[in-house]
Amino acid sequence: MRLPRPHPSPAGIKQEELRRHNLSLLLRYVHLAGPTQRATLTAQTGLNRSTIGALAADLASTAGLVREESPDTHSGAGRPSLVVVPETERYQVLAFDLGVDRIIAARVGLGGALLSREVVPLPPGERGFTAVVDLTAATARRLAEALGPLTHCAGIGVAVPAVVRSADGFVRFAPNLGWEQQPLGAALRAALVDALPDRAIGGPVGSPAVQVANDADLGALAEHARGVARGHDDIVYLSGQVGLGAGIICNGRPLRGHGGYAGEAGHMIVNPTGQRCRCGARGCWETEIGTDAILRAAGHEPGDGGSVRAVVAEASAGDARARLALYEVSRWLAVGVGNLVNLFNPELVIFGGELRDLLEVVEHDVVGRMGAGGLTVSREHVALVPSALGGDSSLFGAAELAFAHLLDDPLGVAATLATTVEV
Amino acid sequence: MRLPRPHPSPAGIKQEELRRHNLSLLLRYVHLAGPTQRATLTAQTGLNRSTIGALAADLASTAGLVREESPDTHSGAGRPSLVVVPETERYQVLAFDLGVDRIIAARVGLGGALLSREVVPLPPGERGFTAVVDLTAATARRLAEALGPLTHCAGIGVAVPAVVRSADGFVRFAPNLGWEQQPLGAALRAALVDALPDRAIGGPVGSPAVQVANDADLGALAEHARGVARGHDDIVYLSGQVGLGAGIICNGRPLRGHGGYAGEAGHMIVNPTGQRCRCGARGCWETEIGTDAILRAAGHEPGDGGSVRAVVAEASAGDARARLALYEVSRWLAVGVGNLVNLFNPELVIFGGELRDLLEVVEHDVVGRMGAGGLTVSREHVALVPSALGGDSSLFGAAELAFAHLLDDPLGVAATLATTVEV
Repeated sequence: MRLPRPHPSPAGIKQEELRRHNLSLLLRYVHLAGPTQRATLTAQTGLNRSTIGALAADLASTAGLVREESPDTHSGAGRPSLVVVPETERYQVLAFDLGVDRIIAARVGLGGALLSREVVPLPPGERGFTAVVDLTAATARRLAEALGPLTHCAGIGVAVPAVVRSADGFVRFAPNLGWEQQPLGAALRAALVDALPDRAIGGPVGSPAVQVANDADLGALAEHARGVARGHDDIVYLSGQVGLGAGIICNGRPLRGHGGYAGEAGHMIVNPTGQRCRCGARGCWETEIGTDAILRAAGHEPGDGGSVRAVVAEASAGDARARLALYEVSRWLAVGVGNLVNLFNPELVIFGGELRDLLEVVEHDVVGRMGAGGLTVSREHVALVPSALGGDSSLFGAAELAFAHLLDDPLGVAATLATTVEV
Repeated sequence: MRLPRPHPSPAGIKQEELRRHNLSLLLRYVHLAGPTQRATLTAQTGLNRSTIGALAADLASTAGLVREESPDTHSGAGRPSLVVVPETERYQVLAFDLGVDRIIAARVGLGGALLSREVVPLPPGERGFTAVVDLTAATARRLAEALGPLTHCAGIGVAVPAVVRSADGFVRFAPNLGWEQQPLGAALRAALVDALPDRAIGGPVGSPAVQVANDADLGALAEHARGVARGHDDIVYLSGQVGLGAGIICNGRPLRGHGGYAGEAGHMIVNPTGQRCRCGARGCWETEIGTDAILRAAGHEPGDGGSVRAVVAEASAGDARARLALYEVSRWLAVGVGNLVNLFNPELVIFGGELRDLLEVVEHDVVGRMGAGGLTVSREHVALVPSALGGDSSLFGAAELAFAHLLDDPLGVAATLATTVEV
């Protein structure tokens, strides 16, 4: 008999795991909320004062993950409670957002501070898998080398518009990049093995800490952690680049699915008599509202530099073809968003990537169409909103992905970083 | 600033919560897996021998939730490890599955044993909300009165084909029952307040333990706990009654959505030029593959006693209209199942209710159509399977719902049950 895995928790909690859990909780809290008074931490975590004090002291003295500062003296009566501050400069990650024609690279500090950001263009001849891996690795190496001697690189996170196997960052299918069955995670780990801390995560033992995930999944993660979806635990994030993807968070947790491939909303069939999609099916949502579809409907040719923003501007200026294109798009947006709302009952549907530019002009129409049918109950509390992190949702999500292991086991992971030979 | 709720865990774990967590883990384990040797529990939970021994002794002596028995003497060399057995007769719940024309009522013991089951027909004139509440409450009272003096009723679970607000069991919309905005949970609690243990759960403080949920959600829960989805943590359960609902489990947890309304796959639009649905939209999945749609396509009138099974038999016997009906159904099944597979990347899509009868004859066609387009990666590991609990998935799910509180806090809830005056 295959034994069931009891849920919700797969394992008993041992005494020694309790401390790790609570250290993780505390560090994650200040990572997401920023500098926080001990009194607030006590109230928010339900742990008592002395436990919070001991945990904060551990994080500060053992690993320098946080420091404690006196609050402003004018903050109220009584003895002021110390403020726990994440060590932004000391613990950093490298984050990458791989696009069709550019790589965005950033250093992000503990607490989510954007410490550096650059756009590396991909010349038309150098967009193949190997070229992109080489350029990403070279950029990572350069950024890592610029870190100070007391600074730890806690990991690398990479967002890619692809169907990604979550276990090892293997790219199954990335039609817009032209990649299929490419070992992105393994290739980056191999290229960076001498430059990065060895934490044996995200791959075979002995490989450095490179994590790869789908860009829409990471956009959702970032908007949930520090964007428009803070405090909202049921969200759908739509990423419109050339294609269309969705990142979904249910009850505060990312929806992954069995192989990590969940959220392929771009290939939800909404119009069975519609256009043939790259995937082979007809009338996928992506063929109706992907940015390529919008540009084509508005009379642009692929690669002519048109953008959704430009189509929106043309429509506002009275261009009939652009207006018709947006009219059609709003029809199919309503069908697809309505389906997602019925299936996921989210509080927010977040329009990210180029879809942000679309939302303002189509929102009224989409909401009206959705209201004309479907279950009203799922729609009562849902709002359609633009992403708060602009075009950088996936980039910030890649940073969150890279920080995840440090946040899960602060002292354990920090100890492995401390023993790493600096590059 | 609205403070983010840190995730995955919303709170620190205190020393005293550790014991509750581990007691819960152990009791849930034997509830789902049945009698289990201590040695197995040690291996499966990761807790050590002495901890398991102490926890089992606590559950046994404090509340009589389990007993410990000697294993068969021929089970191997060395000192045999005691077997922890759930006390099936002592802790029971009442489970109800409310249908259009009947109520199924059952007593289920800890460990999932079906102790009694009966079908209570609903005469045509007595299918209104009040009549169904009265009959359900009367049945519950009768079943509770038949419990022995040493038997505890740990709660009541109710499955209903409706959009249900999870917090209090309020029915928002149940088109097939003809209900809208009906306080099912509150009405049952009020009707049973003197007959049931007061555990202040699922409603205002002081109300008895009645939990109400959507029948497809409960079908998924039961198939996951003790049906075909044991050990599979990403599943979609389809419930075909008159309408069509889905219960979805992601990463081992039920997908609920913001208000508890997630999984309304019946109102996913698959055919925008199709039939008008009761919800007001066109081409909802339910209008294409709901049992009403199948029967209509096969030439049956509503209420003429036709069933999906009969249509399948007619098609097998060569009836052209029945065959055409199934051909159309398999087309729309493929679209809808394909969409769910792309969105949820499940291991299993479970056909429950009347859809079980359909699966065998359409599976080949549906899988073939799905394979003709769409993302292959999501489809690699997915299987379409019939529910293992037959027509009782939702009933067993209602029992799991009723047991949930006892399993979450075994000694705490058992203590409140012990002080209840027996009816």
